[in-house]
Amino acid sequence: MKNGPVTSTLQTMADVWDAYREELEGVEDQVRKNLDSKVTLVNTVAAHLLSGGGKRIRPLLVLLCARLCGHTDKDHLVLASLIELIHTATLLHDDVVDEADLRRGRRTAGKVWGNQVSILVGDYLYSKAICQTVVFQNQAINEVLSEACHKMAEGEVLQLDYNGNPLITESEYLRIVEYKTASLIAASCRIGAIIGGAQIDKQAALFRFGQHIGIAFQLADDTLDYAANGDRLGKSLGQDLRQGKATLPLLHLLQHCPDQDKQMIKDRMETRTLTEADLLRIISLMQEYGSISYTMDRASEFVVAANLDLASFEDSSPKRALSVVADYMVNRDR
Amino acid sequence: MKNGPVTSTLQTMADVWDAYREELEGVEDQVRKNLDSKVTLVNTVAAHLLSGGGKRIRPLLVLLCARLCGHTDKDHLVLASLIELIHTATLLHDDVVDEADLRRGRRTAGKVWGNQVSILVGDYLYSKAICQTVVFQNQAINEVLSEACHKMAEGEVLQLDYNGNPLITESEYLRIVEYKTASLIAASCRIGAIIGGAQIDKQAALFRFGQHIGIAFQLADDTLDYAANGDRLGKSLGQDLRQGKATLPLLHLLQHCPDQDKQMIKDRMETRTLTEADLLRIISLMQEYGSISYTMDRASEFVVAANLDLASFEDSSPKRALSVVADYMVNRDR
Repeated sequence: MKNGPVTSTLQTMADVWDAYREELEGVEDQVRKNLDSKVTLVNTVAAHLLSGGGKRIRPLLVLLCARLCGHTDKDHLVLASLIELIHTATLLHDDVVDEADLRRGRRTAGKVWGNQVSILVGDYLYSKAICQTVVFQNQAINEVLSEACHKMAEGEVLQLDYNGNPLITESEYLRIVEYKTASLIAASCRIGAIIGGAQIDKQAALFRFGQHIGIAFQLADDTLDYAANGDRLGKSLGQDLRQGKATLPLLHLLQHCPDQDKQMIKDRMETRTLTEADLLRIISLMQEYGSISYTMDRASEFVVAANLDLASFEDSSPKRALSVVADYMVNRDR
Repeated sequence: MKNGPVTSTLQTMADVWDAYREELEGVEDQVRKNLDSKVTLVNTVAAHLLSGGGKRIRPLLVLLCARLCGHTDKDHLVLASLIELIHTATLLHDDVVDEADLRRGRRTAGKVWGNQVSILVGDYLYSKAICQTVVFQNQAINEVLSEACHKMAEGEVLQLDYNGNPLITESEYLRIVEYKTASLIAASCRIGAIIGGAQIDKQAALFRFGQHIGIAFQLADDTLDYAANGDRLGKSLGQDLRQGKATLPLLHLLQHCPDQDKQMIKDRMETRTLTEADLLRIISLMQEYGSISYTMDRASEFVVAANLDLASFEDSSPKRALSVVADYMVNRDR
């Protein structure tokens, strides 16, 4: 693999954000414009959502994939911002479904203004994004984006369907993750490729890249819910289990721990009750049976697969940046 | 106006349903196919929704407008069914937002399976409909449908924004109604016209027809909430007011009743409390000040406007049927 001077300068996400700062600010301007509405309630909620941060990973992927495929204009910024709008809409609905109190350390919109607001502003943002995407008159983009939205919704319903069920297999779980989390990330990459004028095979490679890093992201995220970090104990740990959601670390543990513990975990999943002692026991069992490292290993394998998806592209700054983003999915402390 | 033998046979909605029975059954088959999913939870909810009836007014409008404009194929049945799918999705979300117990006399999906299910299956059905619409590769249809969806969501957010506020003007109220209720009905008519190969002016006329009957429908529906029908007293009457929603009969009353009653109504709207005695008092005031007949008169004016929108079309069976549908909007007992 070549390693020219351009590609070697991007080592960390900080480097990537720095290198693409101007374009990302362009996306941010578009996101702000999208959220600007003549309906007061939308503006109020939008201000809350905007000030809540968010890493804008999906817009970043759109512009990196567009650049990788040779796009030089700036008309991709609008599409990148529309994907962020859809992502924001799904977060609003997810927080209602999960009965979440906090998102990125701040109260969720549902907790501030009520679930009605989260549901309807979510519908508003989603339908606005679809409306504005259609204006581009690009059939391929319409198809990729609408399919991603449908897959996401299907993944969410599937997850709800399996709720409280500890018998889900790893492959079924990975399918849910691919649908609910990886779909929009993969669509972001493919839309970047389409804007960049890439051939179908390159579009497909970047779509797979997005699927792989999306799954890696979710698996790494799943482990955080059982991270043996004392000061996060209490409300912020064990939330998935409290909601009856079996994620990969728990599925691994259920396959390896003694029957008595297995029974305890199944019971907690079904009854959606979890004391701090239960959680400490589960975290300790996960360490004993290597459930966290197993999950992180699986996540890392998906990052390796993602990097292989980039193999057919010439070395370049955006390719190096995509590789850094892929690593970042499983190593978000950097 | 000509009144040939073909057009004179359609007098009531029963006649219309009878004349278009075969096509409506085709729509019903498509609706069933759309709701058939490999996700168990979707199928369970779908069975509940399907058996709940529903008049399929929007699909009927698609096929009547398509026929009016000269369409003879049956490929409009799929599009008609997708609009019904979107309508179903909005009902699922509306019932959560309104905390409704019943829909068409049966428990709502949210009350049977929980709000999480209603939110996510709503998202699933909506995204599926968009996905399948995109496949038609018809830019005009994509634009009309996505704009209607966005308008509906905007109307719902606007309504929530005005919740508990008795100071909304009649024109502001009519804008909400146009957005939340009439948008999808108007889009159904325009999509029928597009399928039928109509010119822009005919498309616009049928779009306005849909807007007018949609508004008429909502206004007539608003009066039902205050219908002085003894056996519907108790839980099923006064629901709008209980939810803090000012509809046209109430807005009319607020402009005409004595200050003391006005204050009582404003208080009930703000506190979302309403005793049976309050409701009886309000219904009696509405009769005294003619608020119900005022609202029905306004609804009838919109039906007159709708019939005028049909003036540029030659007399035909579908034109007569559309006129019957328009009348039915304000006279649903027939």
